[in-house]
Amino acid sequence: MTTPWHPDEDDARAIAVGSGILGTGGGGNPYLAYLRLRELLRRGARPQVIDVDDVPEDALVCGIGGMGAPTVGVERIAQGWEHSRAVDDLAAYAGSPIDYVASGEIGGGNAFAPLIVAAQSGRRAVDADGMGRAFPELQMSTFMMGGGPAVPGALHDPHGNSVIFHAAPDARWVERVGRAATVAMGGNASLALPLMSGARLRQCAIRRTLSLARAIGSAVLEARARHASTTEAVFGVVPDGRLLFEGKVVDVLRRTTGGFARGSLRLEGGGRALEIDFQNEYLIAREGGEVRVCVPDLICLVAQDTGEPVTTEVLRYGLRVAVLALPAPLELKRPEALAVVGPRAFGYEVDFAPLPGELLRTWRP
Amino acid sequence: MTTPWHPDEDDARAIAVGSGILGTGGGGNPYLAYLRLRELLRRGARPQVIDVDDVPEDALVCGIGGMGAPTVGVERIAQGWEHSRAVDDLAAYAGSPIDYVASGEIGGGNAFAPLIVAAQSGRRAVDADGMGRAFPELQMSTFMMGGGPAVPGALHDPHGNSVIFHAAPDARWVERVGRAATVAMGGNASLALPLMSGARLRQCAIRRTLSLARAIGSAVLEARARHASTTEAVFGVVPDGRLLFEGKVVDVLRRTTGGFARGSLRLEGGGRALEIDFQNEYLIAREGGEVRVCVPDLICLVAQDTGEPVTTEVLRYGLRVAVLALPAPLELKRPEALAVVGPRAFGYEVDFAPLPGELLRTWRP
Repeated sequence: MTTPWHPDEDDARAIAVGSGILGTGGGGNPYLAYLRLRELLRRGARPQVIDVDDVPEDALVCGIGGMGAPTVGVERIAQGWEHSRAVDDLAAYAGSPIDYVASGEIGGGNAFAPLIVAAQSGRRAVDADGMGRAFPELQMSTFMMGGGPAVPGALHDPHGNSVIFHAAPDARWVERVGRAATVAMGGNASLALPLMSGARLRQCAIRRTLSLARAIGSAVLEARARHASTTEAVFGVVPDGRLLFEGKVVDVLRRTTGGFARGSLRLEGGGRALEIDFQNEYLIAREGGEVRVCVPDLICLVAQDTGEPVTTEVLRYGLRVAVLALPAPLELKRPEALAVVGPRAFGYEVDFAPLPGELLRTWRP
Repeated sequence: MTTPWHPDEDDARAIAVGSGILGTGGGGNPYLAYLRLRELLRRGARPQVIDVDDVPEDALVCGIGGMGAPTVGVERIAQGWEHSRAVDDLAAYAGSPIDYVASGEIGGGNAFAPLIVAAQSGRRAVDADGMGRAFPELQMSTFMMGGGPAVPGALHDPHGNSVIFHAAPDARWVERVGRAATVAMGGNASLALPLMSGARLRQCAIRRTLSLARAIGSAVLEARARHASTTEAVFGVVPDGRLLFEGKVVDVLRRTTGGFARGSLRLEGGGRALEIDFQNEYLIAREGGEVRVCVPDLICLVAQDTGEPVTTEVLRYGLRVAVLALPAPLELKRPEALAVVGPRAFGYEVDFAPLPGELLRTWRP
């Protein structure tokens, strides 16, 4: 059992940087989510973060985050209460209070979803998530693996629409129907899903990832202040990480389609070139046609000077970036997980050749 | 209070014809729905139809029918239990039994939805519906008018997906989100919506329309057997109806798009030509550019020889048809209703010039 903590404004700023790096380009813009939490903190909210083991086994907990293309999330700002309303809707459906919330994905703005809910409603945020990074589709969450049901869940939009996912053959169907509903709702909405017991959360959660995001962000911000290497700062927290490339964005192809931001980019630097494909998140990096890193390992773009994460919706020509490669958490390298988050799940006919080590090696409780 | 009745195979055949005529081209293929009910009757089911006034004021009742394009409904046959499962889902959500079901629209195959549910689950079918005909969109139901909420409701598909509509700003939003979910589900699904009290049903239902469909169908089948005019037979039941046109289908433009079958057709006969637009249902009939009949009045195509209804998904070149014009039920001619079912609601810049009389003039209790 660890001591609960109460994120302050500095923690929030650090989480924005760390979750942006772990977001591998997706997960929603972390800066907007950070501003929302900061505003709640300034009004006196005191959200509490607790460890997975502090959630009672028979308590109800749900995943929480946004569904939709990050490009839409930036242009169409949420009202602010959607995450909490989605949890309220799911609790009303369940007929029982939901006192605990965990991020569906720690990557990007979705890291803040449980903190915002905790700040607004007094629920507690759990220091864990279902991806250890960000992924574009629902079935890619460990919350849905190992026989865990994808339903029930609630989708709540800024207009006040709310639908409950009552039954589904599997998580892919919830992804498909939920994505279509999200597009009809205007392109983004808040998703509280799945509803779990504390016992189930212990089986499926990737632990301490909110703490990890904060630690990565703190290290980057501190190094930036000292004019030290922000890249080395990340590797101080994730010692198995490595620097893959440094260079300039020379080409970006991006379109927002079917509720996703899809595309590719090309980097050049030091006489080399790196090409990266993305679907909300950076999926695969190739050099001279050869795969250097691919999902579920993390491909993280950061601004070369500041270490600030570069998400797929702000990519543009001329940005100077460093590309970090971080090995995936152990939970994503199991055969069951690779079937849904490995390169073939994204249509790439390559085998997953994992980077050595793992994201949370020095962070396991 | 009227005596409850138990539809037999003859009633079912009559309802298929009558609901097909009232469907004004849409509402789902009535013959497929008829076959499903006939099979249940042959296995010993004894569905009961009761009057609106026989539903206790505090009992729960819901609308029931299919959502999606009729063109899809013909090619992708439902499993058969979807309607009952949708009602089960809604009852589970409500935490109370739903013992009564009413057709969302009496037109087309949807007339059979409450009978199939009654045959499968022992619930009672109410002799009423929300349209007195068929319309392409949800907000066009009297169940949603006069301040009646569109939610909650349940959408259940043949794969076993089920979503609950928990909250919505209005019925148009449920239509929009539900239509997108239906398309993601493969193009058709069963919709149990809205959940109402018996007291609310008394306010908003169009009454005795299942009896009306049976009476129209019986009259047509009897006339057909006697080689008498099937058109005159319809007018025996709906004395305010009239024969608008007789002729041959010489052109059909139809596409299945966005969950609808949309298009237009041209008829020629006796030196005249009639043009009709449709969106699942026949909406507007013009002769020489002049509007002859338009929504909410009913434009009904029947085969010239047999009086069998011709739905928009079976339209083809060369069919010889009679076009009947039946005045809409009173409930659809109120200003509040015309705002959602009048010609302007479908994008036609014309005023509604009602046919004299009304559909149910001789059928009001």
